[in-house]
Amino acid sequence: MADHGDVTVAGPDLELSVTFTFEPIGRVRSPFTKPSEIPKGLGAEHRAEGILEIEARFEAGLVDVEGFSHLYVLWVFDRVDRVELTAWPPSDDRPHGVFATRSPQRPTPIGLTVVELVAREACRLQVAGVDMLDGTPILDIKPYLSSVPHERLRRGWLAEAEARRRE
Amino acid sequence: MADHGDVTVAGPDLELSVTFTFEPIGRVRSPFTKPSEIPKGLGAEHRAEGILEIEARFEAGLVDVEGFSHLYVLWVFDRVDRVELTAWPPSDDRPHGVFATRSPQRPTPIGLTVVELVAREACRLQVAGVDMLDGTPILDIKPYLSSVPHERLRRGWLAEAEARRRE
Repeated sequence: MADHGDVTVAGPDLELSVTFTFEPIGRVRSPFTKPSEIPKGLGAEHRAEGILEIEARFEAGLVDVEGFSHLYVLWVFDRVDRVELTAWPPSDDRPHGVFATRSPQRPTPIGLTVVELVAREACRLQVAGVDMLDGTPILDIKPYLSSVPHERLRRGWLAEAEARRRE
Repeated sequence: MADHGDVTVAGPDLELSVTFTFEPIGRVRSPFTKPSEIPKGLGAEHRAEGILEIEARFEAGLVDVEGFSHLYVLWVFDRVDRVELTAWPPSDDRPHGVFATRSPQRPTPIGLTVVELVAREACRLQVAGVDMLDGTPILDIKPYLSSVPHERLRRGWLAEAEARRRE
């Protein structure tokens, strides 16, 4: 399924560049058809319900998924066609490096969402908390296992932006 | 950087299949050179220190990353060449669907690790908690922002396997 490890010779200085090619395992069914419909920024509530439609050939891989309350979904920003190393997130009035944000315009346009699993029916996972567009390609699903203890977590510019809002 | 959205015609029934091709943004420097050296299973402590070496052309994207205590790292299982829909995790004596596990033999061989950021020096991120092999290609880095409240989290077969061990 994954054709990875292709080595291609790129550029005039024969620098070796490796790329990885992935095929989606399914698609997201979501109420959102335009980016503007997706709640964004500070205090945005991601409670929208959706379906993760996984291809039938992967059904055996979903056994026991229903034991987990939350899942990681890795997916592709398939309707984004540019990269910006500096991002202006809706939750702040200051710019930040793209890797310190969840901006879609990232060098590798992969999204990561934690969803709550409501029910599984064969290859259809009913979930809450989708923030993807309808039809979004899904690359992988993983169990959400544990979390970093609250007292050890620092949230950088986001905590500062929240504090400024409260002032 | 990302050559995504390639549409290829595959198979005798002309089924449309979409693939996505990604180029790594950097490499992991880790003390592990063989999979057997990486702590696995119940109670495995991931405290190993390593370096995320990001390519210099992406340095602007790392601005403000140091404000976050923890980062998500998306990476490629680049030394895995098979897919198993049923996984036998080291933490249990029973099989589970691959999407209910973190098995490397997954349809899309992408790994996800939460690391603690110790320090940043330009494009080198010193981190703790690596469980990748040395040289692993990095696809993306995102801030680790929040966590699911403990009381709402269910951990499926893993909680059951832990309970059986305690009996």
